[in-house]
Amino acid sequence: MRLAVIPGDGIGPEVVAEGLKVLRAVVPDLETTPYDLGAARWQRTGELLPDTVLDELRQHDAILLGAIGDPGVPPGILERGLLLRLRFELDHHVNLRPARLFDGVRSPLAAPGPIDMLCVREGTEGPYVGNGGVLRKDTPQELATEVSLNTAFGVERVVRYAFERAAARPRKHLTLIHKTNVLTHAGGLWSRIVEEVSVEFPEVTVAYQHVDAASMFFITDPGRYDVIVTDNLFGDIVTDVAAAVTGGIGLAASGNLDASGRNPSMFEPVHGSAPDIAGQGVADPTATVLSVGLLLGHLGRTEQARKVDAAVAFDLSTRDPHGPVRTTEVGDRLAALAGG
Amino acid sequence: MRLAVIPGDGIGPEVVAEGLKVLRAVVPDLETTPYDLGAARWQRTGELLPDTVLDELRQHDAILLGAIGDPGVPPGILERGLLLRLRFELDHHVNLRPARLFDGVRSPLAAPGPIDMLCVREGTEGPYVGNGGVLRKDTPQELATEVSLNTAFGVERVVRYAFERAAARPRKHLTLIHKTNVLTHAGGLWSRIVEEVSVEFPEVTVAYQHVDAASMFFITDPGRYDVIVTDNLFGDIVTDVAAAVTGGIGLAASGNLDASGRNPSMFEPVHGSAPDIAGQGVADPTATVLSVGLLLGHLGRTEQARKVDAAVAFDLSTRDPHGPVRTTEVGDRLAALAGG
Ligand SMILES: CC(C)[C@H](C(=O)O)[C@@H](O)C(=O)O
Ligand SMILES: CC(C)[C@H](C(=O)O)[C@@H](O)C(=O)O
Repeated sequence: MRLAVIPGDGIGPEVVAEGLKVLRAVVPDLETTPYDLGAARWQRTGELLPDTVLDELRQHDAILLGAIGDPGVPPGILERGLLLRLRFELDHHVNLRPARLFDGVRSPLAAPGPIDMLCVREGTEGPYVGNGGVLRKDTPQELATEVSLNTAFGVERVVRYAFERAAARPRKHLTLIHKTNVLTHAGGLWSRIVEEVSVEFPEVTVAYQHVDAASMFFITDPGRYDVIVTDNLFGDIVTDVAAAVTGGIGLAASGNLDASGRNPSMFEPVHGSAPDIAGQGVADPTATVLSVGLLLGHLGRTEQARKVDAAVAFDLSTRDPHGPVRTTEVGDRLAALAGG
Repeated sequence: MRLAVIPGDGIGPEVVAEGLKVLRAVVPDLETTPYDLGAARWQRTGELLPDTVLDELRQHDAILLGAIGDPGVPPGILERGLLLRLRFELDHHVNLRPARLFDGVRSPLAAPGPIDMLCVREGTEGPYVGNGGVLRKDTPQELATEVSLNTAFGVERVVRYAFERAAARPRKHLTLIHKTNVLTHAGGLWSRIVEEVSVEFPEVTVAYQHVDAASMFFITDPGRYDVIVTDNLFGDIVTDVAAAVTGGIGLAASGNLDASGRNPSMFEPVHGSAPDIAGQGVADPTATVLSVGLLLGHLGRTEQARKVDAAVAFDLSTRDPHGPVRTTEVGDRLAALAGG
């Protein structure tokens, strides 16, 4: 397996080291190439994602990313120029975010019940395309626009992926989340495509919810969800709500997939670079390890993925939820469990 | 006080009746004009909001609305043609949504702590403007766009309102919620305006959070918020998260304000028409009564507003949280408390 590794900023390198430790425990033939990308490189050289680096990344089977970001960098530079550029250039149209409440993990909810959902967020369209602009900047007449672009092609491929995942799960249930009553143009397209693709998956039951109502049900009744499919921006928000109720972004894994397999997919914990705790060895690498599990699953290494997931599940069920986290110790335990 | 009343559909008429009962208990000189608008009228006549009705509504001091909606009406018709049309025509640029955890109310959170926030959501811009369209509809080449429009004028007036409200509260804290790292065009405008207006309110401390992070903190640490200001769509979502953690939309009140006073403001519970429980007398009218409190406050009737709020607070602190709700009984109790 040829893996490109982008440790990134802040706690990124720390959690990635543990992710690799666990990955090596189950994949002996691992070849890694590190890439120095992120706030530090931008501050040093002004470079975000040189084309040559992008070309090299394409030569790998997958990418593991730690975290990108630094409070010293103005908002949007790293996001648009690096993180989102990677997602768009590598056609990561499926942004995969499982949210499962593991045994032993404290939810902020009083009575969470079992939670096991798989959020399938679109990754290359919607309000994330960067379309729009500013007129009469810095004047009292300023006009700023953001244009959400939604294509049948783009919606269909992510909806199809979501149906496939739903069909393979015990509950076989899919919920479309949108705001069709207000965003009628895009909402009409999403609804139509879900309806059309559903015909091919008669075994999957389908529900629809407005994003505001869903954000509430994620809190009051998260157990009702199985697979979710939604647009890029709604997905950004509801997956963080899902992460919050399942124990926080310390545990939230994600995969940015080119489901066609033409480009390498990229796996990253949902949390940021957390500069406040960087370098102290106290960042929880569990989300990165779970992202490694997603990586293995995506590459068809089902048995190895299962081992990593089982290691995390076991470790969480026996961890002291109030105890301090030592990054390397968590990694050591998970590697031993997964490899054992 | 000349009040236009739109009972609407489903449980709308039931909760509005109780809201009026309470309002009458504190405002003896109340003149109400009922308006038959909503799903029923549309289904009967095809009319949504005739211009003549809109003209009449303008002649009132305020509008009280119950709920609009019916599963038999395709998504978007009533929202765009009636609810949002009212907000846009009457220039309701401030969508006011308090979220307070009252004593005696069960939060779904295990340890909610005190929650008392005031969400100030923009009401006449953003992705709600209906701008955008569809190309090659119903084909595999369909393209659907939604354009978020944001003007310095529109952002400034809602931001100013939010600062004024923050300055008048004990904690004097304002949080801007946006997604400036991705929606850089609109995000830049919002950030600039908040920075500029903040100079006039040196006593108010200002924070910024991305909408995804905020949605998480609303669950893990809602007590940190005082006043929130945000765009129309983000506001739609985060105010429902705020409602969920403070006991649900059965208690969520809202005001659609033209803060300039040129048009009547409109007050409505956040919940929908709930056709499944309509006509049974079991809908909780508390959100409508709290909306009446907002109405009184907006019209400068501070003492009467205080009485209504105190009635609700007292009643909630003594209600059996598991007991059944009888709509009229709740209204009777609240009217007696507020008027007594
Ligand atoms: C950092 C940001 C661009 C990103 C997003 O909005 O997608 C993050 O919030 C995420 O969810 O991965
Ligand atoms: C019904 C709908 C148009 C409305 C909105 O999106 O604003 C509702 O969700 C609300 O929050 O008042």
